Amino acid sequence: MKINVAIVGYGNLGKAVEEIILKDTRFNLITIFSRRTIVSKFKTKIEPYDNYINYINKIDVMLLCGGSKSDLELQTPEISKYFDTINTFDTHAKIPMEYKKLDSIAKEHNHRVIMSCGWDPGLFSVIRGLFLAISNKNSYTFWGKGISMGHSDAIRRVDGVDDGVQFTVPNKKAIILAKKGLLEDNIPMHFRECYICTDSNNKKTIERKIKNIPNYFKGQPTDVRFVDKLKLLKLKSNMGHKGRIINNFFATPKNKCSMEFCVSMESNPIFTASIMKAYIIAIQNLKKENKTGAFTTLDIPISYLFDKKDYIKLLHKIC
Amino acid sequence: MKINVAIVGYGNLGKAVEEIILKDTRFNLITIFSRRTIVSKFKTKIEPYDNYINYINKIDVMLLCGGSKSDLELQTPEISKYFDTINTFDTHAKIPMEYKKLDSIAKEHNHRVIMSCGWDPGLFSVIRGLFLAISNKNSYTFWGKGISMGHSDAIRRVDGVDDGVQFTVPNKKAIILAKKGLLEDNIPMHFRECYICTDSNNKKTIERKIKNIPNYFKGQPTDVRFVDKLKLLKLKSNMGHKGRIINNFFATPKNKCSMEFCVSMESNPIFTASIMKAYIIAIQNLKKENKTGAFTTLDIPISYLFDKKDYIKLLHKIC
Repeated sequence: MKINVAIVGYGNLGKAVEEIILKDTRFNLITIFSRRTIVSKFKTKIEPYDNYINYINKIDVMLLCGGSKSDLELQTPEISKYFDTINTFDTHAKIPMEYKKLDSIAKEHNHRVIMSCGWDPGLFSVIRGLFLAISNKNSYTFWGKGISMGHSDAIRRVDGVDDGVQFTVPNKKAIILAKKGLLEDNIPMHFRECYICTDSNNKKTIERKIKNIPNYFKGQPTDVRFVDKLKLLKLKSNMGHKGRIINNFFATPKNKCSMEFCVSMESNPIFTASIMKAYIIAIQNLKKENKTGAFTTLDIPISYLFDKKDYIKLLHKIC
Repeated sequence: MKINVAIVGYGNLGKAVEEIILKDTRFNLITIFSRRTIVSKFKTKIEPYDNYINYINKIDVMLLCGGSKSDLELQTPEISKYFDTINTFDTHAKIPMEYKKLDSIAKEHNHRVIMSCGWDPGLFSVIRGLFLAISNKNSYTFWGKGISMGHSDAIRRVDGVDDGVQFTVPNKKAIILAKKGLLEDNIPMHFRECYICTDSNNKKTIERKIKNIPNYFKGQPTDVRFVDKLKLLKLKSNMGHKGRIINNFFATPKNKCSMEFCVSMESNPIFTASIMKAYIIAIQNLKKENKTGAFTTLDIPISYLFDKKDYIKLLHKIC
């Protein structure tokens, strides 16, 4: 029997999830909820956000595709009262608080939420967890080259900036040092490339303001470039991204080990959607075991990403 | 409170596990069981194998460090009647059968077995599982350069071979093709380097026999070299190994993604021991939840590799 899913939010991620779900025969895409009036190029039904309340018991898993900044913090607790949900909440510092909040709501309403289920956090959390348990040592994570939403938002909030985008670029020298276990704190792990569109004549001021934004750019190698609208539009359409986790450790004083994980994608939302899709199956397995509450990817065994009845086949295939 | 562990089998892996356990303050190494009379350089108590029966209720987890070929298939069901156990059973084709057998024994006796818990199978099974769930496509696994125990055993069984060792060497061209998603079935993924010690004059016959061993060498690029005892001893003492898993896929016809995982170690047994150590904590968490039976690394959430009371801290650290 197919799993009935719906999408909430129809931006880049929502569109990517739609495409991934439509090509996987295990799922029925019932509908998409959006606050905008917009048409799907795959002709999926799109209806107003508030309509979700009409679908109680008709949708197995709601795939929440809004942004972390505003949408997910409001929508996840709301929708998780009525449905099993998956989101990609990625404000790292707020994850523990969100987890506690969602765990209590989902338990109260007898549902399951898999949260922070993208590539980072999500897939990368699993890998960092494995690396930490094996090595007793933290890993280095490198991102990019690719757009950082958080940093792009930060530059767009600067006075005089009409529009902008920020590419995170890993420092190749730092990667080489990390692979050798020689990366020191004074070596920057990333460069920040900012592209700005502005009518202002005071470019020097804008550049200075950006480079001094605390937590985002201050103290980090940051390059600010001014471009025209067309060039910016082109830059913003680049969905590619990369990521890498490196863990080097001495298991004993004489025995060095190294572990490395890397991903590369032509489309960040499409890769994220592929991960969300994998965890829909986990929701079904958690449900069969009457488990409720909030879960991160750290809480879910890999075997839950597959139909339980195929477990022995799975052992043959991947063990 | 510290976790009491014991080691069964004192070969290369048993010695590595001893070293890893002794340097981790979470564990008490109570004793080592061995059929040989041998002394530990760390002065750990070593006693006869059969003595394990005197330790019922005194050991939390038994770390089974015998070889898959004979020891583990006999010892795991025996010892799992009385203790929670972890083994590194790595005869891939037999894993499903072993799983069923151990699951029924462990459930009957109210214990837990984590089986096939090394780097491959074990860590690599988790990664292949993640990759398969995300991509709906099988991964390529490359091993080496490093010694393969199974292939070394196979060449030592050939008439006229006094001693020998086999290094598995990955085909660099195949790795490059796999990274590009262009690896075809007719490209060999590995080369087999065999080093043989023999008194026989019939080296041509030995070479021909080795190259024709079905499943191991037949149809694979195999190189047979004859060396003296001293050179062979030196080759056999090389404990280094490497492994790599590559998964390239088109998430949609236009969107290529790639995932890659690699490990490199100066000592295969030391790295394997580091993984076994991580799963000792999982045994404790399974016990707290009154779960019994057999488990592979696919069945164990990453959060189980850490103390449950530190979960929120863990989210802060790795999510």
